[in-house]
Amino acid sequence: MDRIVIGIAGGTASGKTTVAERIYEAFQKDAVILSHDYYYKQHDDLTMEQRGKLNYDHPDSLDTDLLVKHIEELKKGNAIMHPTYNFTTHTRNAEWQRMESARIIIAEGILIYTNNKLCKLCDIKLFVDADADVRFIRRLTRDVSERGRSVESVVTQYLSTVKPMHEQFVEPTKSKADLIIPQGGHNEIAISMIIDGIKKRLGNQNI
Amino acid sequence: MDRIVIGIAGGTASGKTTVAERIYEAFQKDAVILSHDYYYKQHDDLTMEQRGKLNYDHPDSLDTDLLVKHIEELKKGNAIMHPTYNFTTHTRNAEWQRMESARIIIAEGILIYTNNKLCKLCDIKLFVDADADVRFIRRLTRDVSERGRSVESVVTQYLSTVKPMHEQFVEPTKSKADLIIPQGGHNEIAISMIIDGIKKRLGNQNI
Repeated sequence: MDRIVIGIAGGTASGKTTVAERIYEAFQKDAVILSHDYYYKQHDDLTMEQRGKLNYDHPDSLDTDLLVKHIEELKKGNAIMHPTYNFTTHTRNAEWQRMESARIIIAEGILIYTNNKLCKLCDIKLFVDADADVRFIRRLTRDVSERGRSVESVVTQYLSTVKPMHEQFVEPTKSKADLIIPQGGHNEIAISMIIDGIKKRLGNQNI
Repeated sequence: MDRIVIGIAGGTASGKTTVAERIYEAFQKDAVILSHDYYYKQHDDLTMEQRGKLNYDHPDSLDTDLLVKHIEELKKGNAIMHPTYNFTTHTRNAEWQRMESARIIIAEGILIYTNNKLCKLCDIKLFVDADADVRFIRRLTRDVSERGRSVESVVTQYLSTVKPMHEQFVEPTKSKADLIIPQGGHNEIAISMIIDGIKKRLGNQNI
Protein backbone atom coordinates (compact mmCIF):
# COMPACT_ATOMS: atom_id res chain seq x y z
CA MET A 1 0.00 0.00 0.00
CA ASP A 2 1.25 3.44 -0.89
CA ARG A 3 1.66 5.81 1.98
CA ILE A 4 2.32 9.47 1.45
CA VAL A 5 3.99 11.91 3.85
CA ILE A 6 2.75 15.48 3.72
CA GLY A 7 4.58 18.27 5.52
CA ILE A 8 2.62 21.33 6.64
CA ALA A 9 4.75 24.22 7.87
CA GLY A 10 4.02 27.91 8.32
CA GLY A 11 4.25 30.56 11.03
CA THR A 12 2.41 30.40 14.33
CA ALA A 13 -1.38 30.49 13.88
CA SER A 14 -1.08 30.55 10.10
CA GLY A 15 -3.74 27.88 9.64
CA LYS A 16 -1.60 24.71 9.59
CA THR A 17 -4.06 22.78 11.73
CA THR A 18 -7.02 23.75 9.55
CA VAL A 19 -5.22 22.57 6.42
CA ALA A 20 -4.17 19.34 8.16
CA GLU A 21 -7.73 18.65 9.33
CA ARG A 22 -9.18 19.32 5.88
CA ILE A 23 -6.81 16.75 4.38
CA TYR A 24 -7.62 14.31 7.21
CA GLU A 25 -11.36 14.63 6.53
CA ALA A 26 -10.90 14.34 2.76
CA PHE A 27 -9.29 10.93 3.17
CA GLN A 28 -12.11 9.67 5.36
CA LYS A 29 -9.79 9.72 8.31
CA ASP A 30 -7.35 7.24 6.74
CA ALA A 31 -4.77 9.79 7.80
CA VAL A 32 -2.76 10.66 10.88
CA ILE A 33 -1.61 14.09 12.01
CA LEU A 34 1.70 14.10 13.81
CA SER A 35 2.38 17.49 15.36
CA HIS A 36 5.95 18.60 15.93
CA ASP A 37 4.58 20.16 19.16
CA TYR A 38 4.22 16.68 20.65
CA TYR A 39 8.00 16.45 20.62
CA TYR A 40 8.94 19.37 22.88
CA LYS A 41 11.76 18.26 25.11
CA GLN A 42 11.12 17.43 28.75
CA HIS A 43 12.39 19.86 31.40
CA ASP A 44 11.72 18.15 34.73
CA ASP A 45 14.76 19.87 36.20
CA LEU A 46 13.26 23.36 35.86
CA THR A 47 10.54 25.15 37.84
CA MET A 48 7.28 26.17 36.16
CA GLU A 49 8.51 29.78 36.08
CA GLN A 50 11.84 28.78 34.49
CA ARG A 51 10.05 26.59 31.93
CA GLY A 52 7.78 29.51 31.00
CA LYS A 53 10.84 31.50 30.00
CA LEU A 54 12.36 28.89 27.70
CA ASN A 55 12.60 29.57 23.96
CA TYR A 56 9.99 27.24 22.49
CA ASP A 57 10.46 28.55 18.98
CA HIS A 58 14.04 27.41 18.45
CA PRO A 59 14.64 24.08 16.66
CA ASP A 60 16.71 22.85 19.62
CA SER A 61 13.63 22.87 21.86
CA LEU A 62 12.22 19.87 19.98
CA ASP A 63 13.26 16.22 19.77
CA THR A 64 13.06 16.14 15.98
CA ASP A 65 15.17 12.97 15.69
CA LEU A 66 12.35 11.12 17.45
CA LEU A 67 9.74 12.63 15.10
CA VAL A 68 11.82 11.53 12.10
CA LYS A 69 12.08 8.00 13.52
CA HIS A 70 8.32 7.90 14.09
CA ILE A 71 7.51 9.05 10.56
CA GLU A 72 9.85 6.39 9.19
CA GLU A 73 7.99 3.76 11.23
CA LEU A 74 4.54 5.02 10.15
CA LYS A 75 5.71 4.98 6.53
CA LYS A 76 6.64 1.31 6.94
CA GLY A 77 3.10 0.68 8.22
CA ASN A 78 4.05 0.28 11.87
CA ALA A 79 2.24 1.85 14.83
CA ILE A 80 4.16 4.22 17.11
CA MET A 81 3.96 5.54 20.67
CA HIS A 82 4.41 9.31 20.58
CA PRO A 83 4.87 11.80 23.42
CA THR A 84 2.34 14.57 24.10
CA TYR A 85 2.85 17.99 25.59
CA ASN A 86 0.95 20.16 28.03
CA PHE A 87 1.10 23.83 27.02
CA THR A 88 -0.38 25.09 30.27
CA THR A 89 2.27 23.53 32.51
CA HIS A 90 5.04 23.46 29.88
CA THR A 91 5.71 19.79 30.47
CA ARG A 92 5.58 16.52 28.58
CA ASN A 93 2.65 14.44 29.75
CA ALA A 94 3.43 11.17 31.54
CA GLU A 95 1.24 9.14 29.16
CA TRP A 96 2.45 8.54 25.61
CA GLN A 97 -0.11 7.85 22.90
CA ARG A 98 -0.38 5.04 20.42
CA MET A 99 -0.83 6.02 16.77
CA GLU A 100 -1.62 3.48 14.05
CA SER A 101 -0.20 4.03 10.57
CA ALA A 102 -2.40 5.36 7.74
CA ARG A 103 -2.23 6.09 4.04
CA ILE A 104 -1.72 9.80 4.66
CA ILE A 105 0.90 10.75 7.22
CA ILE A 106 0.81 14.46 7.99
CA ALA A 107 3.68 16.14 9.85
CA GLU A 108 2.88 19.68 10.92
CA GLY A 109 4.81 22.35 12.76
CA ILE A 110 6.45 25.73 12.33
CA LEU A 111 9.97 24.29 12.23
CA ILE A 112 9.61 21.00 10.36
CA TYR A 113 11.57 22.17 7.28
CA THR A 114 14.56 23.21 9.39
CA ASN A 115 15.46 19.51 9.55
CA ASN A 116 16.84 18.05 6.33
CA LYS A 117 15.93 14.44 7.12
CA LEU A 118 12.35 15.52 7.75
CA CYS A 119 12.29 17.48 4.47
CA LYS A 120 13.45 14.42 2.57
CA LEU A 121 10.80 12.25 4.21
CA CYS A 122 8.01 14.55 3.01
CA ASP A 123 6.59 13.61 -0.39
CA ILE A 124 4.75 16.93 -0.56
CA LYS A 125 5.90 20.00 1.35
CA LEU A 126 3.23 22.64 1.99
CA PHE A 127 3.73 26.04 3.62
CA VAL A 128 0.68 27.85 4.95
CA ASP A 129 1.13 31.61 4.78
CA ALA A 130 -0.71 34.48 6.44
CA ASP A 131 0.19 38.06 7.34
CA ALA A 132 2.16 38.41 10.57
CA ASP A 133 -0.39 40.69 12.24
CA VAL A 134 -3.25 38.30 11.46
CA ARG A 135 -1.19 35.44 12.83
CA PHE A 136 -0.43 37.33 16.03
CA ILE A 137 -4.11 38.14 16.59
CA ARG A 138 -5.09 34.50 16.14
CA ARG A 139 -2.34 33.34 18.49
CA LEU A 140 -3.38 35.86 21.13
CA THR A 141 -7.01 34.73 20.98
CA ARG A 142 -6.07 31.06 21.11
CA ASP A 143 -3.47 31.25 23.87
CA VAL A 144 -5.68 33.35 26.14
CA SER A 145 -8.87 31.34 25.67
CA GLU A 146 -7.50 27.81 25.23
CA ARG A 147 -4.20 27.78 27.03
CA GLY A 148 -4.94 30.01 30.00
CA ARG A 149 -2.23 32.58 29.22
CA SER A 150 -2.42 36.30 30.05
CA VAL A 151 -2.36 38.89 27.27
CA GLU A 152 0.88 40.25 28.68
CA SER A 153 2.62 36.85 28.67
CA VAL A 154 1.53 36.21 25.07
CA VAL A 155 2.87 39.60 23.95
CA THR A 156 6.15 39.16 25.84
CA GLN A 157 6.70 35.68 24.42
CA TYR A 158 5.76 36.83 20.91
CA LEU A 159 8.20 39.73 20.85
CA SER A 160 11.04 38.01 22.69
CA THR A 161 11.10 34.63 20.92
CA VAL A 162 8.19 33.89 18.54
CA LYS A 163 8.81 36.76 16.14
CA PRO A 164 12.66 36.65 16.05
CA MET A 165 12.66 32.85 15.70
CA HIS A 166 10.05 33.10 12.94
CA GLU A 167 12.28 35.44 11.00
CA GLN A 168 15.42 33.40 11.67
CA PHE A 169 14.10 29.86 11.21
CA VAL A 170 10.55 29.66 9.87
CA GLU A 171 10.38 32.25 7.09
CA PRO A 172 13.60 31.04 5.37
CA THR A 173 12.15 27.53 5.00
CA LYS A 174 9.31 28.83 2.85
CA SER A 175 11.57 28.37 -0.17
CA LYS A 176 11.86 24.63 0.64
CA ALA A 177 8.12 24.18 0.16
CA ASP A 178 6.60 22.67 -2.98
CA LEU A 179 3.50 24.83 -2.64
CA ILE A 180 2.68 27.92 -0.61
CA ILE A 181 -0.93 28.43 0.51
CA PRO A 182 -1.73 32.11 1.02
CA GLN A 183 -4.63 33.23 3.22
CA GLY A 184 -4.03 30.44 5.69
CA GLY A 185 -6.58 27.74 6.24
CA HIS A 186 -9.50 29.51 4.58
CA ASN A 187 -8.19 29.16 1.06
CA GLU A 188 -10.79 26.80 -0.40
CA ILE A 189 -9.37 26.67 -3.92
CA ALA A 190 -5.87 25.80 -2.74
CA ILE A 191 -7.01 23.19 -0.24
CA SER A 192 -9.35 21.43 -2.67
CA MET A 193 -6.70 21.42 -5.43
CA ILE A 194 -4.10 20.00 -3.05
CA ILE A 195 -6.49 17.27 -1.89
CA ASP A 196 -7.20 16.34 -5.53
CA GLY A 197 -3.47 16.30 -6.24
CA ILE A 198 -2.82 13.96 -3.31
CA LYS A 199 -5.64 11.63 -4.40
CA LYS A 200 -4.13 11.45 -7.86
CA ARG A 201 -0.70 10.67 -6.45
CA LEU A 202 -2.15 7.86 -4.37
CA GLY A 203 -3.59 6.50 -7.59
CA ASN A 204 -6.92 5.66 -6.01
CA GLN A 205 -10.06 6.98 -7.64
CA ASN A 206 -12.32 5.29 -5.10
CA ILE A 207 -11.65 7.72 -2.28
CA MET B 1 -18.81 22.54 -21.92
CA ASP B 2 -17.01 23.77 -18.84
CA ARG B 3 -14.22 26.21 -19.49
CA ILE B 4 -11.78 27.20 -16.80
CA VAL B 5 -9.74 30.41 -16.60
CA ILE B 6 -6.34 30.10 -14.96
CA GLY B 7 -4.31 33.17 -14.05
CA ILE B 8 -0.53 32.89 -13.90
CA ALA B 9 1.23 35.90 -12.40
CA GLY B 10 4.71 36.35 -10.94
CA GLY B 11 7.71 38.62 -11.38
CA THR B 12 9.66 38.97 -14.59
CA ALA B 13 11.37 35.71 -15.60
CA SER B 14 9.88 33.83 -12.65
CA GLY B 15 8.83 30.88 -14.81
CA LYS B 16 5.26 31.87 -15.74
CA THR B 17 5.67 30.70 -19.33
CA THR B 18 7.05 27.33 -18.26
CA VAL B 19 4.09 26.74 -15.94
CA ALA B 20 1.65 27.88 -18.66
CA GLU B 21 3.23 25.54 -21.22
CA ARG B 22 3.17 22.59 -18.82
CA ILE B 23 -0.57 23.09 -18.28
CA TYR B 24 -1.09 23.51 -22.04
CA GLU B 25 0.67 20.21 -22.75
CA ALA B 26 -1.17 18.39 -19.94
CA PHE B 27 -4.51 19.19 -21.56
CA GLN B 28 -3.40 17.88 -24.92
CA LYS B 29 -3.35 21.41 -26.23
CA ASP B 30 -7.06 21.95 -25.55
CA ALA B 31 -5.84 25.17 -23.94
CA VAL B 32 -4.96 28.69 -25.01
CA ILE B 33 -2.35 30.96 -23.50
CA LEU B 34 -3.23 34.63 -23.60
CA SER B 35 -0.27 36.77 -22.61
CA HIS B 36 -0.85 40.18 -21.08
CA ASP B 37 2.23 41.22 -23.09
CA TYR B 38 0.16 41.01 -26.30
CA TYR B 39 -1.81 43.98 -25.00
CA TYR B 40 0.92 46.61 -24.68
CA LYS B 41 -0.49 49.88 -25.92
CA GLN B 42 0.50 51.25 -29.30
CA HIS B 43 2.82 54.28 -29.42
CA ASP B 44 3.01 55.26 -33.09
CA ASP B 45 3.49 58.88 -32.10
CA LEU B 46 6.87 58.25 -30.44
CA THR B 47 10.32 57.56 -31.90
CA MET B 48 12.05 54.22 -31.29
CA GLU B 49 14.31 55.93 -28.75
CA GLN B 50 11.36 57.46 -26.90
CA ARG B 51 9.51 54.14 -26.92
CA GLY B 52 12.57 52.43 -25.44
CA LYS B 53 12.35 54.74 -22.45
CA LEU B 54 8.68 54.09 -21.64
CA ASN B 55 7.74 52.33 -18.41
CA TYR B 56 6.57 48.92 -19.62
CA ASP B 57 6.09 47.60 -16.10
CA HIS B 58 3.31 49.94 -15.03
CA PRO B 59 -0.31 48.70 -15.33
CA ASP B 60 -1.18 51.76 -17.45
CA SER B 61 1.12 50.56 -20.24
CA LEU B 62 -1.31 47.74 -21.05
CA ASP B 63 -4.79 47.65 -22.57
CA THR B 64 -6.16 45.36 -19.87
CA ASP B 65 -9.79 46.20 -20.65
CA LEU B 66 -9.30 44.56 -24.04
CA LEU B 67 -7.73 41.48 -22.41
CA VAL B 68 -10.71 41.22 -20.04
CA LYS B 69 -13.11 41.47 -22.98
CA HIS B 70 -11.20 38.76 -24.85
CA ILE B 71 -11.22 36.38 -21.88
CA GLU B 72 -14.96 36.90 -21.49
CA GLU B 73 -15.42 36.01 -25.17
CA LEU B 74 -13.20 32.92 -24.93
CA LYS B 75 -15.11 31.82 -21.84
CA LYS B 76 -18.34 32.00 -23.85
CA GLY B 77 -16.72 29.77 -26.45
CA ASN B 78 -16.12 32.48 -29.03
CA ALA B 79 -12.93 33.02 -31.01
CA ILE B 80 -11.09 36.34 -30.66
CA MET B 81 -8.61 38.45 -32.63
CA HIS B 82 -5.84 39.57 -30.29
CA PRO B 83 -3.03 42.05 -30.84
CA THR B 84 0.64 41.01 -30.73
CA TYR B 85 3.69 42.98 -29.72
CA ASN B 86 7.23 43.29 -31.02
CA PHE B 87 9.72 43.63 -28.16
CA THR B 88 12.63 44.55 -30.41
CA THR B 89 10.98 47.60 -31.96
CA HIS B 90 8.63 48.29 -29.01
CA THR B 91 5.58 48.38 -31.26
CA ARG B 92 2.33 46.54 -31.73
CA ASN B 93 2.48 44.40 -34.87
CA ALA B 94 0.16 45.34 -37.73
CA GLU B 95 -1.31 41.83 -37.92
CA TRP B 96 -3.68 40.67 -35.18
CA GLN B 97 -4.02 36.94 -34.51
CA ARG B 98 -7.07 34.74 -34.36
CA MET B 99 -7.43 32.54 -31.27
CA GLU B 100 -10.09 29.84 -30.94
CA SER B 101 -11.60 29.13 -27.54
CA ALA B 102 -10.54 26.08 -25.51
CA ARG B 103 -11.40 24.30 -22.28
CA ILE B 104 -8.45 25.84 -20.49
CA ILE B 105 -7.97 29.58 -20.90
CA ILE B 106 -4.68 30.72 -19.42
CA ALA B 107 -4.00 34.42 -18.79
CA GLU B 108 -0.40 35.14 -17.90
CA GLY B 109 1.52 38.28 -17.04
CA ILE B 110 3.29 40.07 -14.23
CA LEU B 111 0.42 42.52 -13.67
CA ILE B 112 -2.73 40.49 -14.25
CA TYR B 113 -3.84 40.57 -10.60
CA THR B 114 -3.65 44.38 -10.45
CA ASN B 115 -6.98 44.39 -12.33
CA ASN B 116 -9.99 43.39 -10.24
CA LYS B 117 -12.15 42.33 -13.19
CA LEU B 118 -9.36 40.06 -14.38
CA CYS B 119 -8.98 38.59 -10.86
CA LYS B 120 -12.68 37.80 -10.74
CA LEU B 121 -12.56 36.13 -14.16
CA CYS B 122 -9.85 33.72 -13.01
CA ASP B 123 -11.18 30.48 -11.53
CA ILE B 124 -7.71 29.62 -10.25
CA LYS B 125 -5.09 32.26 -9.52
CA LEU B 126 -1.48 31.05 -9.50
CA PHE B 127 1.60 33.09 -8.59
CA VAL B 128 4.99 31.79 -9.72
CA ASP B 129 7.71 32.85 -7.31
CA ALA B 130 11.49 32.93 -7.62
CA ASP B 131 14.27 34.91 -5.95
CA ALA B 132 14.80 38.38 -7.42
CA ASP B 133 18.45 37.76 -8.32
CA VAL B 134 17.61 34.53 -10.14
CA ARG B 135 14.85 36.33 -12.01
CA PHE B 136 17.18 39.15 -13.02
CA ILE B 137 19.78 36.69 -14.34
CA ARG B 138 17.15 34.86 -16.41
CA ARG B 139 15.79 38.12 -17.77
CA LEU B 140 19.27 39.32 -18.71
CA THR B 141 20.02 36.09 -20.57
CA ARG B 142 16.68 36.13 -22.38
CA ASP B 143 16.63 39.79 -23.35
CA VAL B 144 20.19 39.75 -24.67
CA SER B 145 19.92 36.51 -26.62
CA GLU B 146 16.30 36.59 -27.79
CA ARG B 147 15.36 40.23 -27.90
CA GLY B 148 18.59 41.80 -29.15
CA ARG B 149 19.08 44.07 -26.12
CA SER B 150 22.45 45.18 -24.74
CA VAL B 151 23.47 44.23 -21.19
CA GLU B 152 23.56 47.92 -20.29
CA SER B 153 20.02 48.57 -21.53
CA VAL B 154 18.69 45.54 -19.63
CA VAL B 155 20.36 46.69 -16.39
CA THR B 156 19.15 50.29 -16.84
CA GLN B 157 15.57 49.20 -17.52
CA TYR B 158 15.66 46.72 -14.64
CA LEU B 159 16.80 49.26 -12.05
CA SER B 160 14.74 52.19 -13.33
CA THR B 161 11.37 50.50 -13.91
CA VAL B 162 11.27 46.69 -13.63
CA LYS B 163 12.40 46.46 -9.99
CA PRO B 164 10.45 49.45 -8.58
CA MET B 165 7.28 48.46 -10.46
CA HIS B 166 7.69 44.88 -9.23
CA GLU B 167 7.81 46.08 -5.66
CA GLN B 168 4.94 48.52 -6.13
CA PHE B 169 2.55 46.45 -8.26
CA VAL B 170 3.58 42.81 -8.70
CA GLU B 171 4.70 41.68 -5.24
CA PRO B 172 1.57 43.03 -3.45
CA THR B 173 -0.68 40.91 -5.70
CA LYS B 174 0.91 37.71 -4.42
CA SER B 175 -1.65 37.74 -1.60
CA LYS B 176 -4.46 37.60 -4.19
CA ALA B 177 -3.25 34.25 -5.47
CA ASP B 178 -4.89 30.96 -4.54
CA LEU B 179 -1.57 29.15 -4.73
CA ILE B 180 2.04 30.28 -4.81
CA ILE B 181 4.56 28.13 -6.68
CA PRO B 182 8.09 28.55 -5.29
CA GLN B 183 11.16 27.70 -7.38
CA GLY B 184 9.54 28.98 -10.53
CA GLY B 185 8.82 26.68 -13.43
CA HIS B 186 10.97 23.80 -12.27
CA ASN B 187 8.79 22.77 -9.38
CA GLU B 188 7.59 19.37 -10.57
CA ILE B 189 5.51 18.51 -7.51
CA ALA B 190 3.60 21.80 -7.58
CA ILE B 191 2.97 21.71 -11.32
CA SER B 192 1.77 18.11 -11.36
CA MET B 193 -0.51 18.68 -8.35
CA ILE B 194 -1.99 21.79 -9.95
CA ILE B 195 -2.62 19.95 -13.22
CA ASP B 196 -4.38 17.15 -11.30
CA GLY B 197 -6.44 19.71 -9.42
CA ILE B 198 -7.53 21.39 -12.67
CA LYS B 199 -8.47 18.03 -14.20
CA LYS B 200 -10.62 17.26 -11.17
CA ARG B 201 -12.31 20.65 -11.38
CA LEU B 202 -13.11 20.05 -15.03
CA GLY B 203 -14.74 16.82 -13.93
CA ASN B 204 -13.26 14.86 -16.78
CA GLN B 205 -11.32 11.72 -15.95
CA ASN B 206 -10.65 10.95 -19.61
CA ILE B 207 -7.97 13.55 -20.12
